[in-house]
Amino acid sequence: MTDLVLTTFDWVPELPRGYVRDLRIRWALKEAGLPYRVNSVPFRQRTAGHFSHQPFGQVPWLTDGDMSIFESGAILLHLAGRSEVLMPADARQRNDVITWLFAALNSVEMASLPWSIFKFSGDNESTQGRQQLNKFLASRLQQLESVLAGREWLTATFSVADIVMADVLRLVDRFDGLTEYAACRRYVNRATARPAFVSAHAEQMAHFAAAD
Amino acid sequence: MTDLVLTTFDWVPELPRGYVRDLRIRWALKEAGLPYRVNSVPFRQRTAGHFSHQPFGQVPWLTDGDMSIFESGAILLHLAGRSEVLMPADARQRNDVITWLFAALNSVEMASLPWSIFKFSGDNESTQGRQQLNKFLASRLQQLESVLAGREWLTATFSVADIVMADVLRLVDRFDGLTEYAACRRYVNRATARPAFVSAHAEQMAHFAAAD
Repeated sequence: MTDLVLTTFDWVPELPRGYVRDLRIRWALKEAGLPYRVNSVPFRQRTAGHFSHQPFGQVPWLTDGDMSIFESGAILLHLAGRSEVLMPADARQRNDVITWLFAALNSVEMASLPWSIFKFSGDNESTQGRQQLNKFLASRLQQLESVLAGREWLTATFSVADIVMADVLRLVDRFDGLTEYAACRRYVNRATARPAFVSAHAEQMAHFAAAD
Repeated sequence: MTDLVLTTFDWVPELPRGYVRDLRIRWALKEAGLPYRVNSVPFRQRTAGHFSHQPFGQVPWLTDGDMSIFESGAILLHLAGRSEVLMPADARQRNDVITWLFAALNSVEMASLPWSIFKFSGDNESTQGRQQLNKFLASRLQQLESVLAGREWLTATFSVADIVMADVLRLVDRFDGLTEYAACRRYVNRATARPAFVSAHAEQMAHFAAAD
């Protein structure tokens, strides 16, 4: 069995706890029942060793034997190749999962992340660009709402695409951005009720609390 | 030989011409020498058929035989599986390409796209959130500058990761966002000097001009 090591920060402030992206990886590892260890790097003083694994100084990264992978999307795709629980082997279903994995990151999070930066900043100025950003997110959520109204998961079975999409929507919901999107809210509730999410979330909270 | 069909809009306004994302796919197809046809859908009146292939009403999407793929990242990864010119078959090099493909989309474009929305809007208000967004992009470009200062391409050979990264940086450069990042600018110049880029760009411009 290859040795999987997930690296995250040793500590983060209160606000991002429960939302640091190692959560997506813990969640996938638990869904697939893959054993792993967790390693920590300093949040305050980012070392050259850290940048050699993650050139943007972020977390997480995963090592699988002598292979080092950063970007939660790339890590999830790697793990999905190791477990059919995360992505079916059938070519067409595999294509659906990969397409929706990119869509969660690039069509939905691309719109929700800048929106959440303004929310985190407590910035409520309604400038021209800000209005465009709000419209960008609203249009993506409206379209996603139609998709999710008709299905349980994004593809035929629960997959890594749902891990990312549910985690992305969860942050929108935290800032009350899903009030008009009932199917999206139900989807988040379905996904976060899964034992693997509950356990991954508790594990991240305990990890950061241990460093306080 | 499977029949590859790339679908894009029939027409777009002047401003996005040369930057519509079918460019990334045309570029990859030309690098790999894969034959393809181009199909158009209305920009103004998006049909139910359009949404059935691309649930966000965007372009491009690609059909490969009876498989339909949306999201430029997913399409490029699919094509990369068909040509070693776009991604080497070696497992470690493949991992590097996939990691950087996600990084181009999720670490760099995630920061540059909202920034460019403000630029497109002509919005120069320096609000709290906007300052955060500017810092977000600046930190990513600073880190990328160190990476690109030491190498020709993101991984050992030119790949789909460079197609996305160069296209992302090209749009930042359009709004003079690369003035302080010489290695990033040289990288964009290297990438866009490739015959496959030049030809893909000319093809997109001609496609939209034909509809005027």
